[in-house]
Amino acid sequence: MNRPIITLTTDFGLNDHFVGTMKGVILDILPNAEIIDISHSVQPFDVLDGALTIAEAYSYFPVRTVHLVVVDPGVGTARRPIIASTEAHNFVAPDNGVLSLIYDREERLHVRHITAEHYFRQPVSNTFHARDIFAPVAAYLAKAVDPGKFGEEVSDFVRFHAPKPKSIDAHTVRGVVLKVDRFGNLITNIRPEDVPALFQATPPAFKIVVGKREITAINSNYAEGTPNAVFGILGSMGYLEIAANRAAAAQIVGAGKGSEVNIVLEGAAAASNGQ
Amino acid sequence: MNRPIITLTTDFGLNDHFVGTMKGVILDILPNAEIIDISHSVQPFDVLDGALTIAEAYSYFPVRTVHLVVVDPGVGTARRPIIASTEAHNFVAPDNGVLSLIYDREERLHVRHITAEHYFRQPVSNTFHARDIFAPVAAYLAKAVDPGKFGEEVSDFVRFHAPKPKSIDAHTVRGVVLKVDRFGNLITNIRPEDVPALFQATPPAFKIVVGKREITAINSNYAEGTPNAVFGILGSMGYLEIAANRAAAAQIVGAGKGSEVNIVLEGAAAASNGQ
Amino acid sequence: MNRPIITLTTDFGLNDHFVGTMKGVILDILPNAEIIDISHSVQPFDVLDGALTIAEAYSYFPVRTVHLVVVDPGVGTARRPIIASTEAHNFVAPDNGVLSLIYDREERLHVRHITAEHYFRQPVSNTFHARDIFAPVAAYLAKAVDPGKFGEEVSDFVRFHAPKPKSIDAHTVRGVVLKVDRFGNLITNIRPEDVPALFQATPPAFKIVVGKREITAINSNYAEGTPNAVFGILGSMGYLEIAANRAAAAQIVGAGKGSEVNIVLEGAAAASNGQ
Repeated sequence: MNRPIITLTTDFGLNDHFVGTMKGVILDILPNAEIIDISHSVQPFDVLDGALTIAEAYSYFPVRTVHLVVVDPGVGTARRPIIASTEAHNFVAPDNGVLSLIYDREERLHVRHITAEHYFRQPVSNTFHARDIFAPVAAYLAKAVDPGKFGEEVSDFVRFHAPKPKSIDAHTVRGVVLKVDRFGNLITNIRPEDVPALFQATPPAFKIVVGKREITAINSNYAEGTPNAVFGILGSMGYLEIAANRAAAAQIVGAGKGSEVNIVLEGAAAASNGQ
Repeated sequence: MNRPIITLTTDFGLNDHFVGTMKGVILDILPNAEIIDISHSVQPFDVLDGALTIAEAYSYFPVRTVHLVVVDPGVGTARRPIIASTEAHNFVAPDNGVLSLIYDREERLHVRHITAEHYFRQPVSNTFHARDIFAPVAAYLAKAVDPGKFGEEVSDFVRFHAPKPKSIDAHTVRGVVLKVDRFGNLITNIRPEDVPALFQATPPAFKIVVGKREITAINSNYAEGTPNAVFGILGSMGYLEIAANRAAAAQIVGAGKGSEVNIVLEGAAAASNGQ
Repeated sequence: MNRPIITLTTDFGLNDHFVGTMKGVILDILPNAEIIDISHSVQPFDVLDGALTIAEAYSYFPVRTVHLVVVDPGVGTARRPIIASTEAHNFVAPDNGVLSLIYDREERLHVRHITAEHYFRQPVSNTFHARDIFAPVAAYLAKAVDPGKFGEEVSDFVRFHAPKPKSIDAHTVRGVVLKVDRFGNLITNIRPEDVPALFQATPPAFKIVVGKREITAINSNYAEGTPNAVFGILGSMGYLEIAANRAAAAQIVGAGKGSEVNIVLEGAAAASNGQ
């Protein structure tokens, strides 16, 4: 018998008692739970950052994993707690769009508004639903309580669309930096299908303009080229990244989250399925 | 059979090998231990900060959990290693007051001086008792060795009192910021019973003076009011917090750990059970 | 039946999805794995820092633990993935020297080049071998697949030597700061056998010159002496550390990783087994 797995993705950080408290609540309901931290360093209040984090990690976990995702600036307001269920996984989160990228990637999905208060930890506070609602519900789900027991299915759940690259003119596709990773790589929102010519074996002449640099190389791994050289690379998340050999590209090019990225294909028509 | 749970609360941070080493020692003694991190980001050497962290989290864990708490600036000196046992939990810590808030919250409690050296990892260093004494003792406790086997009960254990709010005059209660959390909320040491009028449904006119701001609103959740608005709120830890809507109150008001907080109830008598 | 233990040591940090993704891959192959983080805060791209971290922690874990060590600036290049097996443990890592200090400490050791691609997660990316190669191999090893199944033994694995202290003249031994720990202690590369006189019960007159300070005391624990006093101490890692009583020695003396440390034994002959 394998232990039920619950993953945690929050913006709670690791400096306070918040994460430990959630784990205590889960273990008190389901002592054999296997609790796995995905990240607690989502940018505070940043729902898109949380959406990106869980979307990159969830699919690698075994079937029947429960994913708890709490980036919840609206805690205590009317925003709903929800369960989203796919064939393989259950997600527990506030209904504020933090599961939007899951909705994009999963075809068959049921979303329920959690209303069954007898599964909550009483009294329910106004300020810490992760402890009082989300953690207990995740524990009961992992304990094999059927998602249908927690509330009715809804179709008007909150869903946003991650920013998509746009064709600016026949030669230019404009995207944006979604995040900067640990190594200083700039993760853009540009996928190969947005600029197919760029990822051809023999691409046309191009430049990628970001921060104060024009980049003219696409590498296939991080260690190619001279130290500190800056280049584009198709990263493991499926997006174009701006990276540097053993150095932080973000610092070298002077760009960060939200920075504009322009791909100019000289003399060739850019293609984008954006906007 | 559920796995025995051991929680860890330390000021060791996550950058070094310290926490991993402790976990290795625990698993070598008790391979089926479930080890849960509460926090390793207690401020270095700050016994009060450690006391606050474990006090907020411990009660949510299942009965028979062992809580290892190591904030130990006096490691290698004559300060004693102790076990504190309540009906539900065991705590293993240095006898420097880091369990003081546990002593406050638990009525029936036995504290023992750990002297049974055959449970220690030999040779015992002067600089890393977490590895050589506290981790092995926690593992044997979780393995169901009786607390009485580790040493004699003592009554002169070190205990401090967290700073309490004071009545300054008939209108004013003065407290202090105990800590700043991940979101920039200022956690004060003021509880509802210290200023009951403030938390009435219809409080008298009041102002909360902290840093460079005078605050005149008590909200019931973090997302009320205009963005960046600063307000008081009764937080999940049971203390008055100074918070802001999707922003860091600490930065906005210019205050931090140790800052003074004055609550002035205009035209009404303030009440405080402080000294 | 005890659960198989896999430890993780990486430079991935905790802000991204990298670590969570690796854990998902491991649990999908071996759902009852016990995954223990040693540290994910190895300095980015710093193979020596990774080597120090795993070398300090591994020996405390139970026999049959699998240690996954990924500091891998050359991911996607020709550098080989390897398994190093001792009597007690298996290590999975890139062949870039990150296991060098394990090689130093273990007499009987077999290193194999991992080539059995049917254990990899397909398709294998060029940028995230921790997910596609190292995590799956560690999971299968922990599942008791024999190391010999993953590839042939090699003898030309990459191995560097940590910097060793040197005798500068008859009175002086020169070492270096290997790292600064959480508490601001400067961990040098100087061991007792490098300067035996320094650690005698009654050492000759000496000074330790580091940063802007000359240190003339060796203490036996961190809490001796006046607050903020700086001294030498034999730390739990077996190296001379420069420390301060409840304060960060690194800040006080103005030194850090890579700083020179000169031990001058006045009027006595220094000894060093360095070159």
